[in-house]
Amino acid sequence: MNQAPAMPGTRSIGTVAMRWHGSSLELLDQRLLPDQEVWLRLDTADAVAGAIRDMVVRGAPAIGISAAYGAALAARTASGENWRAQVDHSIRVLAESRPTAVNLFWALKRMQEILAGCSTRADAIEQLGLAAVSIHQEDLAANLAMAEHALMHMKTDQPVSVLTHCNTGALATGGYGTALGVVRRLHEAGMLVNAFADETRPWLQGSRLTSWELTRDGIPVTLNADSAAATILASGKVSWVIVGADRITANGDVANKIGTYSLAVLARYHGVGFMVVAPSSTVDMALASGREIPIEERDGQELRRVRELPMAPASVAVFNPVFDVTPAALVDVIVTEKGVVSRPDVAGMTRLFG
Amino acid sequence: MNQAPAMPGTRSIGTVAMRWHGSSLELLDQRLLPDQEVWLRLDTADAVAGAIRDMVVRGAPAIGISAAYGAALAARTASGENWRAQVDHSIRVLAESRPTAVNLFWALKRMQEILAGCSTRADAIEQLGLAAVSIHQEDLAANLAMAEHALMHMKTDQPVSVLTHCNTGALATGGYGTALGVVRRLHEAGMLVNAFADETRPWLQGSRLTSWELTRDGIPVTLNADSAAATILASGKVSWVIVGADRITANGDVANKIGTYSLAVLARYHGVGFMVVAPSSTVDMALASGREIPIEERDGQELRRVRELPMAPASVAVFNPVFDVTPAALVDVIVTEKGVVSRPDVAGMTRLFG
Repeated sequence: MNQAPAMPGTRSIGTVAMRWHGSSLELLDQRLLPDQEVWLRLDTADAVAGAIRDMVVRGAPAIGISAAYGAALAARTASGENWRAQVDHSIRVLAESRPTAVNLFWALKRMQEILAGCSTRADAIEQLGLAAVSIHQEDLAANLAMAEHALMHMKTDQPVSVLTHCNTGALATGGYGTALGVVRRLHEAGMLVNAFADETRPWLQGSRLTSWELTRDGIPVTLNADSAAATILASGKVSWVIVGADRITANGDVANKIGTYSLAVLARYHGVGFMVVAPSSTVDMALASGREIPIEERDGQELRRVRELPMAPASVAVFNPVFDVTPAALVDVIVTEKGVVSRPDVAGMTRLFG
Repeated sequence: MNQAPAMPGTRSIGTVAMRWHGSSLELLDQRLLPDQEVWLRLDTADAVAGAIRDMVVRGAPAIGISAAYGAALAARTASGENWRAQVDHSIRVLAESRPTAVNLFWALKRMQEILAGCSTRADAIEQLGLAAVSIHQEDLAANLAMAEHALMHMKTDQPVSVLTHCNTGALATGGYGTALGVVRRLHEAGMLVNAFADETRPWLQGSRLTSWELTRDGIPVTLNADSAAATILASGKVSWVIVGADRITANGDVANKIGTYSLAVLARYHGVGFMVVAPSSTVDMALASGREIPIEERDGQELRRVRELPMAPASVAVFNPVFDVTPAALVDVIVTEKGVVSRPDVAGMTRLFG
């Protein structure tokens, strides 16, 4: 069982997907979910970089934390006179493990600064280890804070159902989750009737990860095809659509997993609240609007095949954007650990993040 | 190659999925597409009923036509004094092959009426065979007529791109298709830039069938995840969303494959035309509105598994409606072989179908 032990004086945070043992990092192999629960024990930075590259772990915060632990492992395995150069090299290898994860670069920059302040390898082992644990704990604390902010904003006086997309839970973060953390918090407060989970094509994070995570933690979840979300919203059963974010621009536009924009339009049409939950590190005040975010397209094989089975002609053209941009005008509230921005615009975003 | 031979004085209608040989019916096994093209030769009504039940053939019009051919085969294989009872029995078996296909019952009712007028088995063999061919040809003719009506209504003076859902093509009908027939007609007229095809979860008819059919006939197609449709519509590239219908009520509400309603909301939001193309047999003036149509839900395994591979926890609850209802207010035009109803309402529907 990979339940996190409840820390003294705190509640259980439910399922976790990474465990730090000081000299090794254990990661739940997310590629094998939901059929198999296999933990991989990694004791070198290279092994961690490989696990990130191969999608053993995914989700921007979880990637950043794993990389930080990887850097800490590099200090342990380094030896000899040029130990510092070895750690530096490992940090570069970790940085190259995924091209676009902002949290990855942020976490490794912090590790590099700490490394620069260490005079001995023993010192680096201790300081980098402490820093990685810190990054992990801060992420978890941010998730818990976001969930509180969200609950206060929702002002629910009776249990509600919500709809979510992709996986933004324990499997994507240092624990508890962002958007899925709000789902957890609603459940803890006795305020959740049901969480509808979009299956989230093409990677099926909703089927494989969110369904697994919520089922495992005893939180009521119903899986649906992405295209059935409109029918669910029309039914009046759902009070909020709650999603994460990959990047939020200075005007409150939100880049997130493909399908998010569709949900935002549908939520507005049906008078359902649309909430974005993400750590403040996701906010990029240097970008004026979502128009400045390039839309990454991935290989068409992701749609043509499911696992190795062909589902479409091998030659058919495919449009496979990884994410979409939801304009701020369709967002009812952005929730971060620093607080919430209702009906986001440049003024509101600047007040909190300026 | 299963290209239909062009009839003298007519154009090719492209790919077909059924061939009648007088003493046998050949069906393209749609369960094996797109990887394999296997034709099954059926020479008994029981074999045809089995093929319908097992989804060798799907699509309401295609099911109706196949069943009619099945009834014709029953007359051939019947023998002895009680040949008529044998044919009657076969028609009942065919009627039970799929529970909800309106076209199936309609076609078999017609075959039964013709059977009643036949005095000898030789007469029944001839008349039922002719009637089945007639039903097939009428369907094809209706599809060709719908495509003409649609093209006239669209008044395109320059090539356009469209987006479609599910499979409404040659594989779902007696040939050419309903909504996909309009796509074919646009292409023939040099007026099609590209057809975007929703993959259409959970059955992936867009990936497996529409992509295959259009690729095969040299019609430009781009496959996309259902949840990417909003991004495509927001891009301004698409002028029309074109879909089929399972049932249309007296006020113009449209029941169709799950995901259709989502597209209708998104099309309206983005100022993109929303066109429904279906034979007039789909119109049910006895139902006042879509509220009277029960929404059939299918087994959750369709989402939990892709083919036999588990994609979600075996125990997770699933909401898996087969179709949804699009209110008439979101429909710009309904196209049938009898003509078009723009901005459908009770008055407009009654004028054409009253």
